[in-house]
Amino acid sequence: MNDEILKDLNEHFQAKARLGIMTILTSMGTSDFTSLKSHLGLSDGNLSSHLRVLENAGYIKIEKKFIKRKPKTLYQTTPLGREDFLDYLEQLKTIIRIVEQEENPTT
Amino acid sequence: MNDEILKDLNEHFQAKARLGIMTILTSMGTSDFTSLKSHLGLSDGNLSSHLRVLENAGYIKIEKKFIKRKPKTLYQTTPLGREDFLDYLEQLKTIIRIVEQEENPTT
Repeated sequence: MNDEILKDLNEHFQAKARLGIMTILTSMGTSDFTSLKSHLGLSDGNLSSHLRVLENAGYIKIEKKFIKRKPKTLYQTTPLGREDFLDYLEQLKTIIRIVEQEENPTT
Repeated sequence: MNDEILKDLNEHFQAKARLGIMTILTSMGTSDFTSLKSHLGLSDGNLSSHLRVLENAGYIKIEKKFIKRKPKTLYQTTPLGREDFLDYLEQLKTIIRIVEQEENPTT
């Protein structure tokens, strides 16, 4: 077993809420606070604190826009966030392969 | 986007240490405390507390054996632990597919 894969897993994405935020932002492009909240079933405080962790890591950025004359805060991934998140998913794929190879040793 | 996949992710395996423990035990069959510690780079206290969470969830069991006349504590997954962990990996695969479809929309 290659231990590094288990030790090096990026903790920023390991929290369920942050994995969810990154999945939504990477697959949908941008999202606002209210839709993230409803997609993830999180409280305001909980979602805010996870967004802050990702923002402080340089993984997401905030854009304030006027949509139909109303101010709206939009979240999106940064290029670094996208890159590191895709790397993280590759790490998960390696872990999945390790387990599945043992499950089906003949394949 | 199917929200349930993001909300229903099994939190027991979401901690990096517990994902590591389950990966090792599922792929290697059994392991003792010292090898888990060295594979995962965790302190005694940290590893103990994560093992306890998995044991309390009914996901791993402890077996005390004598190997070369020395007592040894071995950890292994329960059938429930194995089943729920494989389900969790399926959830991760779905999340990975969601992100990758967006990354390569033509495939």
